Order: sequence, then structure tokens, then C-alpha cells
Amino acid sequence: MPTLDICLSPELLHLFNPKGKIVVVTDILRATSCMVTGLANGVHSIIPVDTLDKCRKLGLKKGYITAAERDGKKAEGFDIGNSPFSYMEDAVKGKTVVVTTTNGTRAISEASDAKEIIIGSFLNLDAIASYLSIKQKDVIVVCAGWKGHVNMEDTLFAGALAHILNGDFTSKQDATDMAIHLWNLAKDDLEGFLSNCSHARRLQNLDITDDIAFCLTLNKYQVVPVMKGESLVPASLASVA
Amino acid sequence: MPTLDICLSPELLHLFNPKGKIVVVTDILRATSCMVTGLANGVHSIIPVDTLDKCRKLGLKKGYITAAERDGKKAEGFDIGNSPFSYMEDAVKGKTVVVTTTNGTRAISEASDAKEIIIGSFLNLDAIASYLSIKQKDVIVVCAGWKGHVNMEDTLFAGALAHILNGDFTSKQDATDMAIHLWNLAKDDLEGFLSNCSHARRLQNLDITDDIAFCLTLNKYQVVPVMKGESLVPASLASVA
Repeated sequence: MPTLDICLSPELLHLFNPKGKIVVVTDILRATSCMVTGLANGVHSIIPVDTLDKCRKLGLKKGYITAAERDGKKAEGFDIGNSPFSYMEDAVKGKTVVVTTTNGTRAISEASDAKEIIIGSFLNLDAIASYLSIKQKDVIVVCAGWKGHVNMEDTLFAGALAHILNGDFTSKQDATDMAIHLWNLAKDDLEGFLSNCSHARRLQNLDITDDIAFCLTLNKYQVVPVMKGESLVPASLASVA
Repeated sequence: MPTLDICLSPELLHLFNPKGKIVVVTDILRATSCMVTGLANGVHSIIPVDTLDKCRKLGLKKGYITAAERDGKKAEGFDIGNSPFSYMEDAVKGKTVVVTTTNGTRAISEASDAKEIIIGSFLNLDAIASYLSIKQKDVIVVCAGWKGHVNMEDTLFAGALAHILNGDFTSKQDATDMAIHLWNLAKDDLEGFLSNCSHARRLQNLDITDDIAFCLTLNKYQVVPVMKGESLVPASLASVA
């Protein structure tokens, strides 16, 4: 039976061995929710980069849009920030979005040894679970966290995924049990449960409650973003089978 | 109001700033449970060291006993291993125990910047809570984990402590919320809750179920082990006030 382990922070990723495994990167508020939303709404591809400078330079290409967030806010001088609603606009359809965020893009770059990197969020939870069920490879769910610290919403997503795949995947890590327990506590009122947590509180202070509610919506999209070279693109049916 | 944060693994300790704070190190199965048991049962002092070699060399001194564990088992050539029952025997009363373990002693050495390091376990949970209430300093609970990975039992202890001190201490970290939620799920049947978790399962395979049951006993002892120089000794009433 393949394994499904949960890495609660990118700071712990060196304890896992991503080689030959599928890494699911999640940064619920809001990087990976944005990526899923974009690719589900006609964005051509998304290039995650780790610095503002790289984002700016790459974004000079024709047909490229820049998206940059630092500390929860849109970074100055870039086309869009980190709101999923920006990823639905006509301006981004058919375009390549070059994106850098505080936590999410870092998690992606640190998982580069993996056999495959895919992007998870509550918005495409069931699609991710189906994809992993078909692939039958060992999985590491990497929670982006907040500046290295673990956070609740990414852990809850990891727990939801582990809960769905329980029985088909196994785990020897307590983090998996923890995340499943927390998911079971939270699942009936995700927004209420999170409203008491520090990271969500921090973001609420930024006046993005609509973003948060959207990012906590389950299974709105079927897309599974997968890393191909430097870009995230929708997994094709051919690559799933 | 002072802060109480929870560091779920020694690998994350660099994200916290222990300076000026009290660090509570916990390694429920079994290092810190042993230390508390020993100091509550007449052991004179305990010197945690990080290598087997240091343990062996220091242990040559008169009146010193060596205790060494690796991968859950007693290391060969040392006086005792990592069972709390060994720390109650007549042979250790009045003695200095030099101890090295897979996870717990490492957590102690990595917290050396703290203003004060104390040793927590379920066995002295209320005593630790009272001590921290009196001191009114910022607190970091450092979970020893298992080879860098987070584990359930240390997280539950941290959650229990945070739960008791909730209202008198504040936290901006989601890890604190997580640990409190998990404690609330587990508290009515700690042994049953843990029996499904990987680290406890791993230890059960080592045939130490009596040790585990003992380490999950709440408030058997009043002692608060505190680091003075290189040694753990019982906190005196003078230092508490």
C-alpha cells in the first residue's frame, strides 16, 4: 500500500524523502487556492518563482502577468496580488501568470526533488484525491505554513485529503493522525473553526474575508495543477491514466 | 499578558526566540517522564548530554550512574536505559544520573539560549502549570518529537499545559490551537487515544506498555526539574517565588 505522509512545514521537508513520490503542495490562504482558481478559469499556465525580482523580470515577456504577495498584501508594482478573484478576471485568461508569495512558492521550490508536484486546495480536494488514487504512488502533502510555522488551514486540508484516502494509503507519522483528527473537528464548520486561529485572524485584519470564504469552499473545481518544467498546467487526462 | 507558544519539533526551534523565555522541554515517551520520576524519587541531579560518548566518560565519576537510550532501547554498556521504573530504584537514589536519549536530550541542548529550561511531563503537569503561573514569563513548550518529526504524545502534553494556562497566557501560533484541540479530544482516554498513533505503536512493539501507561499518568509528582548549569535539579521553593 502506498504511503501518505504530511509535512506540516517546509522547514521539516528535509526529514522526508520526496524522491519518486508525488508532492501535494498546499497553501490554502491563498497561494494554491489562487493557482487552482486560475487554471480552472482559463489561465494558460502559472510559473511560481521565489523572489520578487524574478517575478518582475519574467513578467516582462509578452502574454505574461505578474502576481506578487508579501505578508498577505499585494506587492507594489505587480499586476495582481494574491486574491483568487483576480485569477478569474478576463485580463488573465489565456495568459501565463508569474507568481511569488510569502509561503506557497517557497514550498514548491523546496519540493523540487519530487517525482511530481501537484497543487492542492479545498477548491479541488476531491480531484486531488482521485488523482492520487489513480496514480498509486507514495505521497507527501507539504503544508506551506506561515514563515516556517505550522498553520491550521493547511493542516486541515492535509487532514481532509488523508481522511478521504484513508484505507488506500498508509502512514507511519503522527502528523497524519493529528491532521485527520483536526479535520474531523473542523469539517462541519470550517470557517467558524478557523476564525479562532491566528493565521486566519491575521488575514482577516487585511480585510480579505471574501477571499477566505472562497478559499474554504470545497470541490468547486476539478482541475489538478501539475508542475511541468517551470510551469503549473492542468494535468491532462492522459497524464492521469 | 505573557505568551505561551508551542514548538512541535526541535527542528522548528530556530523560528522561536528562546531568549528571556522559559522553555519547557517535553519528551513524554520517555525521557522527560524519567527525569521527573528520578528527581521525585531521590535522584540527586540529572545531567543530560547529547552523545553516548559523553555519557560514558562523565559516568566514570564516583556517584554517577549512566542512562542511555537509542531508538527506544537501552544502549549497551550503560547502567540503565529509559524506563521510568529504573529511576525509582535504590541504586539511583542520591546519585547523579548522566543521561542521553534519541530525542529528549537533544531538545534540551538546542534550547540552551533560554532564560530557564524546565522539564515537563504528564507526571508533573499541574506543578509545571503552577510554576509558570507564578513566574509570569513568556513560555515556549518544546516537543522533543521523534527524530525531528512531530509526535502526538508530546503535542498532547503541550496542549494540556496550554489548556490549563489559557486565559493567563496568550499565543499567536496555530500550533497552540492545534495542541489544545487534540488534548481536548484525547484527555478522557489518553492511553486509548495514543494507542492508534505511530510513535506509541512503535514503542509498544518494544514491549514497554507498562512504561507507557506510567508516563501517561497525570500529576503523580510535584517536582519541577530546572536546569542549573549542566544539571537538572528540583526547583526550590525559593526559585519559584
